Amino acid sequence: MNYISSLENKLFKEIMSLKVRKNRYKSKLYLIEGIRFVEEAIKNNCEINYVIISESKKDYIIDRFNFKDGLFNVIVFSDELFEKVKQTEKTQGIIACLKIRDTFKKFDFNEGIYFLIDKIQDPGNLGTIIRTAVAVNALGIILIKGSVDIYNDKVLRSTMGSIFKININFIESYLELNEFIENDFKLVIADAYSDNNYYHVDLKGKIILAIGNEGNGISDEVKNFPHIKVRIPMCNDLESLNVAQALSIIAFERVRQLDI
Amino acid sequence: MNYISSLENKLFKEIMSLKVRKNRYKSKLYLIEGIRFVEEAIKNNCEINYVIISESKKDYIIDRFNFKDGLFNVIVFSDELFEKVKQTEKTQGIIACLKIRDTFKKFDFNEGIYFLIDKIQDPGNLGTIIRTAVAVNALGIILIKGSVDIYNDKVLRSTMGSIFKININFIESYLELNEFIENDFKLVIADAYSDNNYYHVDLKGKIILAIGNEGNGISDEVKNFPHIKVRIPMCNDLESLNVAQALSIIAFERVRQLDI
Repeated sequence: MNYISSLENKLFKEIMSLKVRKNRYKSKLYLIEGIRFVEEAIKNNCEINYVIISESKKDYIIDRFNFKDGLFNVIVFSDELFEKVKQTEKTQGIIACLKIRDTFKKFDFNEGIYFLIDKIQDPGNLGTIIRTAVAVNALGIILIKGSVDIYNDKVLRSTMGSIFKININFIESYLELNEFIENDFKLVIADAYSDNNYYHVDLKGKIILAIGNEGNGISDEVKNFPHIKVRIPMCNDLESLNVAQALSIIAFERVRQLDI
Repeated sequence: MNYISSLENKLFKEIMSLKVRKNRYKSKLYLIEGIRFVEEAIKNNCEINYVIISESKKDYIIDRFNFKDGLFNVIVFSDELFEKVKQTEKTQGIIACLKIRDTFKKFDFNEGIYFLIDKIQDPGNLGTIIRTAVAVNALGIILIKGSVDIYNDKVLRSTMGSIFKININFIESYLELNEFIENDFKLVIADAYSDNNYYHVDLKGKIILAIGNEGNGISDEVKNFPHIKVRIPMCNDLESLNVAQALSIIAFERVRQLDI
């Protein structure tokens, strides 16, 4: 097992560079951290380039993961070096470097629900939304350019490893939504001024549930498509809920209606 | 209007000290930041000790708030000083120092829903939960000691100002829950292994919805009380949802059942 303690080491420099979005896409690599997260990656057959473990947690981790079998390229970092690469405060001493999937599955137009993510900025929100998508067995997530990066460490952490279980596709142009509409998907938009409470609307069948930016809501380009507005009733003059919560409330109303 | 630019100023030092929990409770003061948050505080008749504005944003803020009328004690900080007290990256140049309410309303035992917060650690989660409590018109929030402080800046920010609209009470001992049970409240606990899907359970009437710590769930002390377990059905072997989301899914199922 290689041991690295030099700040000049090439691998150390590569890992540091992966904290920046553009480097992740250039090298097609990203980092995940923590025991359970790495376990999820292995369970879901992710392509793991290498695993970094910290010197002081080495024995426990090698034992837990059975890394002796040589299946993975495991490198030990001195604690000083690991402190610099870690992205969580209380680190568990393990980071894996994964290949970015070149191609997710193409969108399919079977019965089911998609989440349309229209420029979500908060990493925690996007991570939680991904987790909800997995929970309700969504067909996938449609990500409009301009949202926070899915390989951002805070996004990844908030997904709690569920990112490996969902199909995520970017669309370059809003026009790509046409194909969904042509395939009988109903576009559902949460709107505080709608007359329809979300639980009075049929949410079964083919649905795209759109969630907009935290500050500005859903963009006009999305609203230009035929859509159904639904309202989450709120007391005490509250204007809005957190976007990830609004989405899960509506998505789970669909679960209730289908009684899955 | 006073103008302060010295790092040695007493008020500046007081504000800096309020970033630490124990100082907030000692002086019974806390800070809120941002135009809308301060507007909410004024609208909700909070006791405002003083308002700090940054020099460069002074004109706009004085104009917007009509601070010329002398109703509030407004102090201008040099931009250098304001940079040190601000708690958000993109500051709007306004901070208010508020009195901690000595007494919230006592718990009442009318028909309605309470949220029981059992050692929530993440500020964003607690803030979002407070916002949801306002949205569903909860009777109040029961906070068990050991949760993140409600006057933490990140908690406050996540409430989006809704903290002023809800009754929050601490309980020192789990035994205090007895009084709720004696007053016919049903304690509802989310549990992934329950047989009851939450939407098959009657959630109307008097309900305490308990939410546990992000890592450890609901404590045994709470589970020792008679309770109903409800399950949020999840696909793809997902073990759990984010706690704030789980809570809002169940709380809004109650809204649906009541059709309010």
